[in-house]
Amino acid sequence: MELIQSLSQMVNCLRSRGIRRKVAVVCPNDPHTEYVIIRSLREEIAEYLLVTDSAHLKEALDLRAASPDFVHIYEAGTPDEAAALAVQLVRMGEAEVLMKGLINTDNLLRAVLKKGEGLLPEGGVLSHVAVAQVPLYHKLLFFSDAAVIPRPTLAQFRAMISCDLDLCRKLGCEEPRVALIHCSEKVNEKFPHTLSYVELKKEAQEGRFGHVFIDGPMDAKTACDKHSGEIKGLSSPVVGNADILIFPNIESGNTFYKTLSLFGDANMAGMLTGTTAPVVVPSRSDSGNSKYYSLVLACLAGCKKE
Amino acid sequence: MELIQSLSQMVNCLRSRGIRRKVAVVCPNDPHTEYVIIRSLREEIAEYLLVTDSAHLKEALDLRAASPDFVHIYEAGTPDEAAALAVQLVRMGEAEVLMKGLINTDNLLRAVLKKGEGLLPEGGVLSHVAVAQVPLYHKLLFFSDAAVIPRPTLAQFRAMISCDLDLCRKLGCEEPRVALIHCSEKVNEKFPHTLSYVELKKEAQEGRFGHVFIDGPMDAKTACDKHSGEIKGLSSPVVGNADILIFPNIESGNTFYKTLSLFGDANMAGMLTGTTAPVVVPSRSDSGNSKYYSLVLACLAGCKKE
Repeated sequence: MELIQSLSQMVNCLRSRGIRRKVAVVCPNDPHTEYVIIRSLREEIAEYLLVTDSAHLKEALDLRAASPDFVHIYEAGTPDEAAALAVQLVRMGEAEVLMKGLINTDNLLRAVLKKGEGLLPEGGVLSHVAVAQVPLYHKLLFFSDAAVIPRPTLAQFRAMISCDLDLCRKLGCEEPRVALIHCSEKVNEKFPHTLSYVELKKEAQEGRFGHVFIDGPMDAKTACDKHSGEIKGLSSPVVGNADILIFPNIESGNTFYKTLSLFGDANMAGMLTGTTAPVVVPSRSDSGNSKYYSLVLACLAGCKKE
Repeated sequence: MELIQSLSQMVNCLRSRGIRRKVAVVCPNDPHTEYVIIRSLREEIAEYLLVTDSAHLKEALDLRAASPDFVHIYEAGTPDEAAALAVQLVRMGEAEVLMKGLINTDNLLRAVLKKGEGLLPEGGVLSHVAVAQVPLYHKLLFFSDAAVIPRPTLAQFRAMISCDLDLCRKLGCEEPRVALIHCSEKVNEKFPHTLSYVELKKEAQEGRFGHVFIDGPMDAKTACDKHSGEIKGLSSPVVGNADILIFPNIESGNTFYKTLSLFGDANMAGMLTGTTAPVVVPSRSDSGNSKYYSLVLACLAGCKKE
């Protein structure tokens, strides 16, 4: 498939392939969620299963009035019950994407992570992936983890990389370049993640991650700027040309996300991954655009090999 | 004094106050260091004590030829001996700023940190401070630590904040606003730095840091964007208006530095602090401008209350 190079191109991709994804929304009762729903209905890329608590049934009915054929309503007593029901709809195959509305993230995640009744396979790893469209970078930039895993273990890094690779390939990048981020190029046992990086590179060479280039440790600038790499005498297919950045901890991943979105004038999309279906959990301070593209990203990610 | 709001204004400030700082340079034999020396001589803000190893005496003599009255040459056998001699010149009061040329940072730091013969007072804490001029921010942004302390302890946070406040005030900001950075607003014992933050805020209220606002934990966007703070219902003098960001670990501080400089189109300056005199240790991938402004920053920081 064609390589997707901007967030808006994701919409075109869904439309040109005639994909309309079924999205279950938990408590679709706030203006931001309504905006995402209405915009995606207009773009004809989503069909909605709105799971509302009793107190907000009217708002859901108003939304259905806008597009009766593609909006279905499910009533649950409380927000927690709405979350449980939405998760069940995904488990039964009625919905392909789960989206958070006006419910606490912690409460939604409790339903998503519930053993035996949630969306995380046994032994699975929940993580966050973000995609940034940055004016000063020549392609989309994927990265993890800005939101979920505090300090990834080797197994968590492995799962995170696999999810990011999967998504990156679904957006048409056949041989993604993965940079393992640190503050320098030195492997140092005082920084345990650099030891994990050595292992991950070895595993990549052994073919565990398919067609891929993985390199690091390196800093975020070296990963995205050829000139910085040259000055340091580094040459690798990843240096200056990364598709995916893997951060060593949640503070650095989150700082990258926030700095890009505020000072890099970037457009962002993000979702939870590792689950059997993508989960969209917009951050309160994300722009409306960013929330919309997060849904679009999840719709694309929900694709099997098509 | 007037508030300095851009890096170039730092140069004007030195010039208008007639300050010409004495700078000891260890191994001034690479083009970047030469560029900084020549530009600052032309601006009349520095006088140089060039400490060269024997192998590079000729290059130093060439530099002196450009400005014989303000360039003095000291010969040492090896780069390590040059570092030791430059540190001695600072200790004797002959020089007020130390700058790294073509010598490994580790070797220079060995001389700087040498017990009883270096530049770090007993019980002192070496840290890094950077100043960014970002097109999308309304004032200069100071932050620590992108380069030295891996995971600050409470005592290290305290020392770091004191150094940053001192510098910020020297640039004319009377009551700096300090944001303690994390990925959310929650204090959580799983993230020990958030516990340090609680203590630091208490100490600030008790007056330990002088006139100052300190708040956190908060993420980098909340610290620098009023709108993000409003959405989260946060109001404090720091939210959306921070002068200083304190990062929880070196990976997040370094990521902020690299992301701002690459994608935020920012001009940066940085130096080591906690020592008896500022130490300029430019990073290889810094631009020439950035290296120059690092020297200028150190010249300003070298001011006593003037």
